Amino acid sequence: MREEEPMKVGERYYRSIWQDKADRGSVHVIDQRRLPFALEVMTLRNVSDVYRAIRDMAVRGAPLIGAAAAWGVYLSFLEHSGRKEYLGRTEPGGGERTDDNSEPSITGDVYNAVISDAERLKSARPTAVNLEWAVDYMTGVMKIFPDADALRRAAEGLCDEEAERSRLIGVNGLPLIEEISSRKGGETVNILTHCNAGWLACVDYGTALAPVYFAHDKGIRVHVWVDETRPRNQGSRLTAWELLNHGVPCTLVTDNAGGHLMQKGMVDIVIVGCDRATASGDVANKTGTYLKALAAYDNGVPFYSALPVSTFDLSVDRPEQIEIEERDATEVSTIDGIKIAPEGIRVSNYGFDVTPARLITGLITDRGICRADKESVLKTVS
Amino acid sequence: MREEEPMKVGERYYRSIWQDKADRGSVHVIDQRRLPFALEVMTLRNVSDVYRAIRDMAVRGAPLIGAAAAWGVYLSFLEHSGRKEYLGRTEPGGGERTDDNSEPSITGDVYNAVISDAERLKSARPTAVNLEWAVDYMTGVMKIFPDADALRRAAEGLCDEEAERSRLIGVNGLPLIEEISSRKGGETVNILTHCNAGWLACVDYGTALAPVYFAHDKGIRVHVWVDETRPRNQGSRLTAWELLNHGVPCTLVTDNAGGHLMQKGMVDIVIVGCDRATASGDVANKTGTYLKALAAYDNGVPFYSALPVSTFDLSVDRPEQIEIEERDATEVSTIDGIKIAPEGIRVSNYGFDVTPARLITGLITDRGICRADKESVLKTVS
Repeated sequence: MREEEPMKVGERYYRSIWQDKADRGSVHVIDQRRLPFALEVMTLRNVSDVYRAIRDMAVRGAPLIGAAAAWGVYLSFLEHSGRKEYLGRTEPGGGERTDDNSEPSITGDVYNAVISDAERLKSARPTAVNLEWAVDYMTGVMKIFPDADALRRAAEGLCDEEAERSRLIGVNGLPLIEEISSRKGGETVNILTHCNAGWLACVDYGTALAPVYFAHDKGIRVHVWVDETRPRNQGSRLTAWELLNHGVPCTLVTDNAGGHLMQKGMVDIVIVGCDRATASGDVANKTGTYLKALAAYDNGVPFYSALPVSTFDLSVDRPEQIEIEERDATEVSTIDGIKIAPEGIRVSNYGFDVTPARLITGLITDRGICRADKESVLKTVS
Repeated sequence: MREEEPMKVGERYYRSIWQDKADRGSVHVIDQRRLPFALEVMTLRNVSDVYRAIRDMAVRGAPLIGAAAAWGVYLSFLEHSGRKEYLGRTEPGGGERTDDNSEPSITGDVYNAVISDAERLKSARPTAVNLEWAVDYMTGVMKIFPDADALRRAAEGLCDEEAERSRLIGVNGLPLIEEISSRKGGETVNILTHCNAGWLACVDYGTALAPVYFAHDKGIRVHVWVDETRPRNQGSRLTAWELLNHGVPCTLVTDNAGGHLMQKGMVDIVIVGCDRATASGDVANKTGTYLKALAAYDNGVPFYSALPVSTFDLSVDRPEQIEIEERDATEVSTIDGIKIAPEGIRVSNYGFDVTPARLITGLITDRGICRADKESVLKTVS
């Protein structure tokens, strides 16, 4: 029995991705590009829809990208297998078998087509480790259980698993906020966050925001400084929208403001998400995170990154090993299609930066809080 | 004979504020809110026009605010003295004398009215020390030489003086760039700047950008990373426009990007302007400057602030003594009148932050480069 309630918009509870029981041939997401001005549900009917939704950031946030990609592999399988498996009836002789196909109930063509789609899915966003992880998980399932129901259950399970991990991150991070609240004698705890690591990014609850929601729901007085997060403004568009709809007090600030707020003692704790963490505890997250970590360190403000252990990439242990995605120039030079920079200006747009472990107070994971060092990380993950 | 050429837009040379010889009753500025999309000249005909231009940031940048305010005091004097003095003819008995007026050729009413306008001008923007300084200078001139010609010459002289100070900052800062260029064997020197501290902010040349322009004009290969500078985007709107029009290679980045660029060795030097500096060398500048200083320090990148010595406020010697202006919420929640944040969101908008002296490599002034410590500052200023 879980005590924590799922996330809500007004009176209705939402996840960021779901399937209707009546239509097993598609999956639904909230089009996050339309927020905060319209809550628009987008239906993804095939793997290309999923690919585009990830690439164009209709869905974003490491855990949600992974969840969407899992459904993408499922939809690819439906498409290439002619949905025979999906309908639960294996029609004898319905699939062309090739001699070199060692899979039990899947043709080589179908298998290869899905693998090819899966590889393409992985290329939709280079930085999020969950994308690769989720795709590989699904193709792994396909190799053993090559049927639509099994893949559907795997994708559903992965979503439930992400939601549960977020819930556990919330449970594990909550005491940090409770402790500050009690130290301040019940006065408001001021939390600064960057980008969106809430339920929109994470199927449910969120990573960085899960402890905040749970603290608020428990009656602890919290207030969130929401970094705008240029160029895509995930803070002002998504985090502010999430918090407002859940009733959590919050204030929007530019990305430039956090340093001053910390100098003035107006921030008690910084909690951000994570797109990829090294075995040493370095954290790749939305561009600008590193600057906030520097300011937190300089002002003695605790700085935490919240992530499920699946976000650790144990194959890397140095910041410079993480590839940083460069995104389109128009993200910087326009807003809502309106030019905000002079004609002909050159633009550089790195999507992420890496915060070195030495600036991080701790990592809030679904398996507890660990220090940002190799020993703690390996102990937590293994 | 000066070697440095004034700043240009295309083939025409501009200052950011000037008076037409044909009309001594007004002053012209470039409306900086319309850049980079339109080069629109604004005519200020009275002190209220000047007040609004400063408050609404049609003119901005510490030295230009001071220059505009000086013209504001002059226009106030014209208005209240019925322009008699201005026409160069002192009409005998033309002014009502009150008994308690100890000024030689100005009525108490005129004097008091100008002082009242002057105080109001000072309140148009709280952080820029030049505003207060320029207003006090002009009212001081008025006390001794209460006639329009004298005040006009004082305002003109103040503008020329600001331009000359900027030129000297350029001359003094140039060797820093030359040295990096020579150390890199003539390869491009990458300079990061925040906000706009170019000629638009400074009558002519600029503060932070003056050394960059002089280096470029001298044939040194330079490239400028231009911080967008939310919320008012002075970087993308003004600095990018200035540099493009002068032909200096530059790239626009979000305010979040600088940390990553420095981590990757893509920045050789950071040069920013200054709105008010303490006697200890702390620098109040556009919000977000502190974050760039932290990143520069963390990555061993030299960090300089460029300022005329008039920008030092020797009455303060600790960062927390500088009042930080809070600006309107709509600067953050809208761009060009378009909403970019959810309805009902609370916004905080501090315009500046203070970079502590310990993070600053040096201060480029019109009297040479000094260290950011009390001893050096006092030696340079006195």
